[in-house]
Order: sequence, then structure tokens, then C-alpha cells
Amino acid sequence: MSAKYEATVTAPVNIAVIKYWGKRDSALILPTNSSLSVTLSQDHLSTRTTIRASPDFGKDRLWLNGVEEDIAASKRLINSITTARNLRAALEQKLLSEGAPAETVVPLSKWSLHVCSENNFPTAAGLASSASGYAALVKALGVLFDLPQSTSDLSRVARVGSGSACRSMFGGFVAWQAGVSDDGHDSFAVQVADRQHWPELQALILVASDKKKAISSTAGMQTTVETSELFAERVRSVVPKRMEAMQRAIAERDFGTFAEITMRDSNQFHAVCLDTYPPISYMNDISRSIVSLVHAFNAARGRVAAAYTYDAGPNAVIYALKDDMRDLVELVTYCFPRDDSTLLEAFYPNSFAIFDSADQVGQRLTRPEVAQLAETAGKFPPGSVRRIIHTEVGDGPRVLPDSESLLNDAGMPKHAKE
Amino acid sequence: MSAKYEATVTAPVNIAVIKYWGKRDSALILPTNSSLSVTLSQDHLSTRTTIRASPDFGKDRLWLNGVEEDIAASKRLINSITTARNLRAALEQKLLSEGAPAETVVPLSKWSLHVCSENNFPTAAGLASSASGYAALVKALGVLFDLPQSTSDLSRVARVGSGSACRSMFGGFVAWQAGVSDDGHDSFAVQVADRQHWPELQALILVASDKKKAISSTAGMQTTVETSELFAERVRSVVPKRMEAMQRAIAERDFGTFAEITMRDSNQFHAVCLDTYPPISYMNDISRSIVSLVHAFNAARGRVAAAYTYDAGPNAVIYALKDDMRDLVELVTYCFPRDDSTLLEAFYPNSFAIFDSADQVGQRLTRPEVAQLAETAGKFPPGSVRRIIHTEVGDGPRVLPDSESLLNDAGMPKHAKE
Repeated sequence: MSAKYEATVTAPVNIAVIKYWGKRDSALILPTNSSLSVTLSQDHLSTRTTIRASPDFGKDRLWLNGVEEDIAASKRLINSITTARNLRAALEQKLLSEGAPAETVVPLSKWSLHVCSENNFPTAAGLASSASGYAALVKALGVLFDLPQSTSDLSRVARVGSGSACRSMFGGFVAWQAGVSDDGHDSFAVQVADRQHWPELQALILVASDKKKAISSTAGMQTTVETSELFAERVRSVVPKRMEAMQRAIAERDFGTFAEITMRDSNQFHAVCLDTYPPISYMNDISRSIVSLVHAFNAARGRVAAAYTYDAGPNAVIYALKDDMRDLVELVTYCFPRDDSTLLEAFYPNSFAIFDSADQVGQRLTRPEVAQLAETAGKFPPGSVRRIIHTEVGDGPRVLPDSESLLNDAGMPKHAKE
Repeated sequence: MSAKYEATVTAPVNIAVIKYWGKRDSALILPTNSSLSVTLSQDHLSTRTTIRASPDFGKDRLWLNGVEEDIAASKRLINSITTARNLRAALEQKLLSEGAPAETVVPLSKWSLHVCSENNFPTAAGLASSASGYAALVKALGVLFDLPQSTSDLSRVARVGSGSACRSMFGGFVAWQAGVSDDGHDSFAVQVADRQHWPELQALILVASDKKKAISSTAGMQTTVETSELFAERVRSVVPKRMEAMQRAIAERDFGTFAEITMRDSNQFHAVCLDTYPPISYMNDISRSIVSLVHAFNAARGRVAAAYTYDAGPNAVIYALKDDMRDLVELVTYCFPRDDSTLLEAFYPNSFAIFDSADQVGQRLTRPEVAQLAETAGKFPPGSVRRIIHTEVGDGPRVLPDSESLLNDAGMPKHAKE
């Protein structure tokens, strides 16, 4: 039995607190502005990817969640794989030119690949999987190809697959520096602080049901760049100030500032979407109700105790410190009561008792001030929020042992759906 | 029987196509930027106001839609009445100093007033009545006090009552020049074109149901001025260009340009509301569905054939030329079917047959391309749009004969509710 050239990794989801929206170069995926995100725990949300290279494979093949996809249909997939393969080819050449024996330099760059990828959360969750997906792909390619695991190199490769994927190459708090060069060599992600830096910070994901198919972010952001008369002002003078202030807030664990910038930047992102022609709307009435509820919660607390942020869809991610999270969960589950289809996911290891007994959710309001708030806000139709995930800040991509491979001995998916 | 000093007028509603949002002086109601509106027909939407002055009245009194209001509670009402009264006092003094016999100069400025005001549309329609209300008040005061009816003078008085009221002092197409002076003498409305200038232009008002109480525009706009980081850019560089382009479009009856600027400016107004902290949302999911429907209608037409605009609430006003209005009405009434509470108001004199038979509305789709559009958009829950008003461009305030007075001989409301 010959040696198996294979790597299996997982990569995390990240949620931006300063939003990426707009490219200055669509081919290289160079953004108009820097952005900053929080990496969420892979215990709850992640993509696992196995890649094997073999001289026996006839062509590159890809399976996503058990279903084979046409690689040729995705320029971004081809871009990512080709970029990594070129780096491997250069490495092989370098090793040979340095006198390495030919039999020790495996010509992986010339072999076809089988890529198998699975999310541990259903796509129906309404959570973008492209960041974790491309980060897992690139991390696996990097491990398989034995590429230098330097921070910036792989992040750049991930970027050409999906912009925000470059931020999922790290755990903790991550900044994607926009860069200024035309070739993109200075546009990559860096870790601002690791996951242990701020252990009290937690996240609550509220998945709002939505029947409408939203405009893709790839198409949407370029229409914004071309048509919004306010967008240039955001890029020129607002975001640079916020990037600085946000990094300071994270360094100082200053939740009030972190939270206010997070909310303001989410709102401004959706504002420039609305200023686009034709306008783009991702948030719906449920999203907006959650915005109001968070501001009411903060007003009742007399400080900024929670912060919402919305990506290109109606789902809310709410950041709060551990000590405030219980009341927030009680409030949210009271105002957005569950129906039979609601999923409650308390992946968080030290999650609250309220999550232990799902039947009780929406019934309990421990503190009188929360009860009062809930009464004022009122109850929304059951099932308006159809999934609640309570999670925390997480680490970067993980390399898994062979036993966790998604491919069988023949190099085919273990969990194929057909 | 002594002479009766009284005036009765009506004043119209206006709908801005370039939005007023933000004051540089809250006391004088001086705006941060110029705005431009279309005056709608008073046959459909107007406020009627009768004001009588008498030495027998003990104090100023006001009735709105049959219910007495406390004048002292409204600084804006006091401002408007005091400003007009001061102008009258100056006029009386001037006449006397020019040698007019004392018995010909009635000391109206010293007498108390009875003000009676009624809208011909219910407040429940969700249409702002402050513009027509203050315009009617000031027009009636001007007539009663025999003030110079020069364009700018009364418009300035109306402005101190309610900013957008200054635009309701004229028919047709009206610009409110922001002005630059601190005392506001250069901040008033001017007519850009009269109502006969563009007879093909029509308006369709769609009242969207909304349970939520929106933040008042007075409070909201100042929060925007203080907190939106994009607002200054709108004021500085976007609106001035749009004011010029819009006036040119109206002069040339260029509907495509008129419509695109109208939609872009409505969107930008709501964008800066969203960029406000805490964010302000006036549009709801129904509003946004109408936005999508109008863009789909335009895409199907291959030209910009209709334009939506939204004020500080969820209701849409759609402008279209007469030849496109029939299809638009069919489309809207199909996608937003009526329920028992829906009101259809075809005030427009030459309104379409489709409005004649309310039962049929929502059933007919004359043209196949409209039917196809409607199918794609789908049907929304019945009653989502609960009132539809089809109207046209209208004239400015009208002076009515004594027979139309709202006050009886005793100076009390004819239609009091108690």
C-alpha cells in the first residue's frame, strides 16, 4: 500500500464587527476598506475539509455536504486551487534546485485532487459558509502541500477564494488590512488578539426566518461601489477611524466602545446598501425588531451591554459579556417565542440553565427589570426567530488526525448523498 | 350686527422628491439642505381652516377635527400665530403712521382668535397633516390680517410652524431654498413650475399598515444631524447637485430623470436614518416589497416608468405618467389584494375603470407582461396595503367664500365632537 497524501482540517466562521463591503479589484478580491471580525468557536460552527492528492485520480473533484459539485463552474474555486498549486510547484522546484533527492520531493502539484467538505451546521441555518469553507480549503491545501504556514501567505490564498475567508484563517480577533498595492500582496488578515484575550465575550446568533431570496453579496457590493453617493465617504473617512478605535477597544477589553462601533458599523453597512441604486435590503421587520430590543435592553441597563450586527441577510449576531448574556437570552426567547420548528443550540460549554430545559424557554424572566422590558417590547409571532445559537470566541483552523478524514480508502466521500 | 373678521382657506399636502431632513436652527426651523416637492390635489387631500378675530373672544382657541386643543401646549402654533400677529401689528402701525383714519384700521392684532381646522382625510390614513395644517393656518392668518401675499413672506411664517409647510404654500412643483443666513430671511419656498406644467404626472399613494409607532420626524432628524457620519456628505455634496438636476428634469418634463432622482433621494434619506445612532427605520417589509415591485415594473418596461418615495413612515407615494398608471394600479392591486378594511379612493377625475368597480380590483391584469410581473412578485397578505389613493398634481392654498366657514355665528365649530 502506497503512502497517502492527504490533509483534514476544520476552519471557523467569523462575524465582522467592521464590515467588508466593496472591492477595488474584483479578480484579486482586494477590498475598498479594511475590516475586522471575531472568530466564532468551531465546536459550534465550522467547515471540515479533507483533500487528498493522488496520481491515480483522473481529475480534480469536489463534494460539498455529500453532493458532488462542478469545480469548473466556480472561478473562485479554480483560483484558490491554482494559486495553492502554483505555490507547491514553486516549492518543489526550489527543493530540487537546492539538491533535495528527487524521490523525497513528491510531485503533488501535478496530481489531481479529491476535495470533500462538510459544514457542521446546515446551510438552512442562514449562516454564510463561504468564509469557513474557503478557509478550510486553503488550510487543507497548505498542510497537504507543506506550504509555509506563515500568517500572511495562506491568508492571501484564502482571500482570492472568498474575501472574508482570509479572516477565518485565525482565531480570536482578526483584522483584514485592505492594503494599497495593485497586486494584493499587502491585502491579508492579521490576528489582533487571540481567543483567550477576552474570555467573557460571547455571541448569540438569532436566525430570522425569511422567504425572500436576497441579492448575493458579490453582486450587491459592486453595485454599491458604483452607485452609492455616500459609500466613498464611508471608505475614506469613517472606516479608518473605526478600525483604530475598534483595535484599541479590543486591546482594552472596553465592551461599551466595542459594542457601539459594532452597531454603528452594521447600521452604516446597511445604510450604504439602501443608498445603492436599485437599493439593497438585507434586514427585515424581525431584524429591525431585534435592533430595537437591543437598544431597549441597553437603555434599561444604563450602559451599552449588548451589540447587534447583521451581514448580508436578516440574521442577527448579538455580542455581550457573560454577565449580561443570561438576561439577554431570557428577553430574546420571551419576545420571540419558539414554535415547533425552533432550534435552540446551547453549544457553549458553560451555557445557562435556561437552555437546558428547552420547554421553559420563553417562560422565565428572572429579573423584574427584564420582565418589564419584555412586556414593553411585546411578543412576536412564534417561530419568527427559528434558531438560536449561543457561542463564544474561537480558535483558528485546526489540523485533524487521519482518523477524521472525510474520504474513504478509495478517495471517495464517506458520507455521499445520492 | 357688527362686521365679521374671518377667513376660510384650504391648503394642500406636498410630497418631497428631494427630502428635508435635518435643521441647522431648531427654533427658526432652518434646514440643513434645500428640498423639493410636488403639491398634491386638494380635491383629494387638504386641510380646511377658518380663523375669526373678535374683541369678544376671551382668548385664542383652536379646534382640530372637531376637538379643542391646548394652544399653549404647542410652541410651534404659538410661534406661527405670534409671527403673523406681529406682522399685522406692524401693518396697523404703518397704516396709522401714513395717516389712515383710525376707524379704518381694525386692531385685529389685539383681538383673540378662534381657529377651526379639519382635514378631508382621516389621520388614520397615515399621511402627515402638519404641512397642509400649518399652510392653511398661515394662509388664513394672511388673508384675515390682510398681510402682503408675497410669495416669500407667508412661506417664511409657515416655515416656523412646520418646516415642510412652507412648500404647501404653493401649487405645482416647489423648492424650499435652505438659505444661509442666521435669521432665516433667505429660507423660504418658491414655485419651480405650476400645476399645469406637467399634466401627465400622477401620484398613487399606498398606505401600508403598521402597528409600530414611529419616532417623530422632529426628534429623528436632529439625532441624524448629531450622529450620522454620512449625513454631512449628503448635505454638502449630494443634495445641491440633485436640486439642480431635479429642477432641470421638471423644466424638461424628463420623467426618467425625475423618477430616478426621486427614488435615489428617498433611499438616501432612509439610509441616513439607518446610519443614525440609535438607527431610525420608517420603512417596513411591505414598503420594501413595493420598492422591489416598482423596480421590477421599470425593468419590465425597459425604462424608468414609476418612482416610489417614502417619508417618515411606511407609506409609499408612487409617481408615474398617466399612460403607465393603469398597469401600475393593476399590478399593485393584484400583488397587494384588498381585504374588508381596504379603502380605494379614486378621487382623480379621469380615473380608470379599474377603480370604478372596487370588487374587481386585484382580479384584472389586462396586459400579459403585467400578468407575468405580478406572478413573479406574488401576492402579499390581503390588507397589507390598506388604502390606495390615486391623485394628481394640485394648486396652492385656496381662499373660500364665507359660506364655507367652519365656525358658526357664535364663533364656535359647526362640527364639534364632544
